[in-house]
Amino acid sequence: MVEKRKPIPVSDAVGRVMERIHTAETETVRLEQAGGRWLAEPITADEAVPPFDRSPYDGFAVRAEDTKNAGRENPVTLRVIETVGAGHVATKTPRPGEAVRVMTGTIMPQETDAVIMFELTKELSDEEIQITRPFEPGDNVVKKGEEMQKGAEVLPGGERVHAGITAALATFGYSNVQVRKKPVVGVFATGTELLEPGDPLEPGKIRNSNAPMVVEQLKEAGAEAVYYGQLPDEFDLCLSKISGVLEDVDALITTGGVSVGDFDFLPAVYEKLEAEVLFNKVAMRPGSVTTVAFQGEKPLFGLSGNPSACFVGFELFAAPWLKAAMGAQKPFLQQADAVLGKSFPKPNPFTRFVRGHAFFYKGKLHAVPAGLDKSQVVTSLAQSNALIVLPGGTRGYEKGDPVTVFMLRSDGAAEFQEPVKEQT
Amino acid sequence: MVEKRKPIPVSDAVGRVMERIHTAETETVRLEQAGGRWLAEPITADEAVPPFDRSPYDGFAVRAEDTKNAGRENPVTLRVIETVGAGHVATKTPRPGEAVRVMTGTIMPQETDAVIMFELTKELSDEEIQITRPFEPGDNVVKKGEEMQKGAEVLPGGERVHAGITAALATFGYSNVQVRKKPVVGVFATGTELLEPGDPLEPGKIRNSNAPMVVEQLKEAGAEAVYYGQLPDEFDLCLSKISGVLEDVDALITTGGVSVGDFDFLPAVYEKLEAEVLFNKVAMRPGSVTTVAFQGEKPLFGLSGNPSACFVGFELFAAPWLKAAMGAQKPFLQQADAVLGKSFPKPNPFTRFVRGHAFFYKGKLHAVPAGLDKSQVVTSLAQSNALIVLPGGTRGYEKGDPVTVFMLRSDGAAEFQEPVKEQT
Repeated sequence: MVEKRKPIPVSDAVGRVMERIHTAETETVRLEQAGGRWLAEPITADEAVPPFDRSPYDGFAVRAEDTKNAGRENPVTLRVIETVGAGHVATKTPRPGEAVRVMTGTIMPQETDAVIMFELTKELSDEEIQITRPFEPGDNVVKKGEEMQKGAEVLPGGERVHAGITAALATFGYSNVQVRKKPVVGVFATGTELLEPGDPLEPGKIRNSNAPMVVEQLKEAGAEAVYYGQLPDEFDLCLSKISGVLEDVDALITTGGVSVGDFDFLPAVYEKLEAEVLFNKVAMRPGSVTTVAFQGEKPLFGLSGNPSACFVGFELFAAPWLKAAMGAQKPFLQQADAVLGKSFPKPNPFTRFVRGHAFFYKGKLHAVPAGLDKSQVVTSLAQSNALIVLPGGTRGYEKGDPVTVFMLRSDGAAEFQEPVKEQT
Repeated sequence: MVEKRKPIPVSDAVGRVMERIHTAETETVRLEQAGGRWLAEPITADEAVPPFDRSPYDGFAVRAEDTKNAGRENPVTLRVIETVGAGHVATKTPRPGEAVRVMTGTIMPQETDAVIMFELTKELSDEEIQITRPFEPGDNVVKKGEEMQKGAEVLPGGERVHAGITAALATFGYSNVQVRKKPVVGVFATGTELLEPGDPLEPGKIRNSNAPMVVEQLKEAGAEAVYYGQLPDEFDLCLSKISGVLEDVDALITTGGVSVGDFDFLPAVYEKLEAEVLFNKVAMRPGSVTTVAFQGEKPLFGLSGNPSACFVGFELFAAPWLKAAMGAQKPFLQQADAVLGKSFPKPNPFTRFVRGHAFFYKGKLHAVPAGLDKSQVVTSLAQSNALIVLPGGTRGYEKGDPVTVFMLRSDGAAEFQEPVKEQT
């Protein structure tokens, strides 16, 4: 007997999974280990930026008052009493007619209130400069707190640390950073047809590409993957293997075994474990058999054994749950509007997620399917940077139709092109 | 005396650096360690995909010939002689009137040439099924090599390994993968005004955010960073520190010290090292003082001490050189067309790279500056996902103008939205 399953819309399925977030604990890591981790705390400015009035140029710190009558016909001569590098503090206080030679970033010497760049002065000697125009108080001075007040929030938390965030963390003294612990995710592959990548091929068998792929997807999401190998083709062993590891993981991913084949044991395993099945049929292609169940707080992601369906199921359900568990503000794939580059004349009642290549051309994002569009084709995953979303319906799609794409990553460019300003 | 430097266009500067690529050697890593590394070899199919004729469904493998007269009024009964799971090979060869129960992925049993899904059969007993329509030879059979012929090229090499590539590598038995060795890049910060992130603030000093940022940028590019600390404020020590490490690195990055201040020693260091200076002034903001020199095959990237200028200089010059050295096909940042979200009325003769936030809205990419637009503001780097390129010229820019953006990363989305098909 073939079990009848009722498909639910993708957004309902995503919604059911995302209702069950269990936020990971925090841990402290060294700043240099924080890259790629999810911030568990806001970044706040422990000091103003800049922390003092400073010179933004190499030049001379002066009392603006001294320059007010300066002009081409009336050059003013100032005496240079000291040279101060960034990081040092002037030891002398200029009196009227005196200036201090300062470098970019130097704290403004007392009594000075303007900086004159080297280029705008004439150095008469090591100790005398001439100025031929007046300066106002505040000219070329970056005021304390001009960029950020002490205590201001730089980021609210929930971001993934990249180089720009590292710079902010360093600026505000976060030599230790609070991040979310990586959820530990167990991975099992199912299917006796599977060989490990190092094995020679055998008749009827194919190599296990799903497990290495999912392990890499887990790393990309920022989680910790533990690959437990393949599940045996025997129900009791399968059940005991799965129950055996549940204690050790925060989530479990299986690939394959969720369909209606004679050896698709996962549905029965969920039943035996008394796990709550959120859904076992989603109105999507590929991956309609994707199943998500919860045992207590732990999600059991039953991904399809079909490589593309497995990939899509992970990105739609597992990745957002894991990122949200790590406190991500933005746990979903970036969505963008694109122009469809190829017709899909055949309608499909289910929403399709087509592995695609998205690229910018003349002001618009275009998306074309990557390689062949068969759900079995693992090779096109290698060439995809986006999933093209074709909502289910009674009609197909035509080349040129507006579509939504889910961006998997931002591609590099082969050439550098400096844009030239169009003078209109 | 202030040295006069002649600015060169950004694309010329990039071109000069990219003429000097020295490709890194290859090394072999385990598949599970290959994520984020740059492929040094093409991926070729060591076997056809699929490697044999296979069933894409759970169903019955039949001789199509047997079904040719089947119809609603003329059901055909077939005898099921065996059940075969994926990964196994049928032990019996069906004679006329016989069928084999097969699971998704099973190798087609001898003499069978079509598969009938469970749903389209009526199971009379464990050993008999009834069919009410004919099937053609080849129906529901994925032919050997249908997705890829043996020996075909999946990827040419020069790609960075992501989960989709991992899947392809696994499929074709790459348990070991040839990748480019990570260039070892030394990093020095200059400036006595710098405190390390863990230090308490002192008058006149600021925290060193450039070195941690550059170290993270290096990791993001796939290179190996070695931070050597801060250079002293004394020329001879500075020179001996730099010469001391040159042997141990493939490239050297310094932050700060390339301007015309009294303690900007890098120009003199390059001279003393007899390094060839490719340029020391680029027509760009921020980062016009960015200097790149070569000592033999080793690039010395003299980035500005200003955090944003440092960031931009790294992304424009160091990252592409390093990625190209690792064999990258696409070493540059992705370029996209966007709509400018804010006016920049003041013209600038130099090309500006504005830290920005790019987002999709109603079919177009829009870009707005992130935070304040002062080159000192480290905090806006934390919020940027793009650099907005404003070519130099005699006029400013207006909100709504078309601009080019360099994408730093693909953002996530806060919400999942399943697009609904517009039925026109």
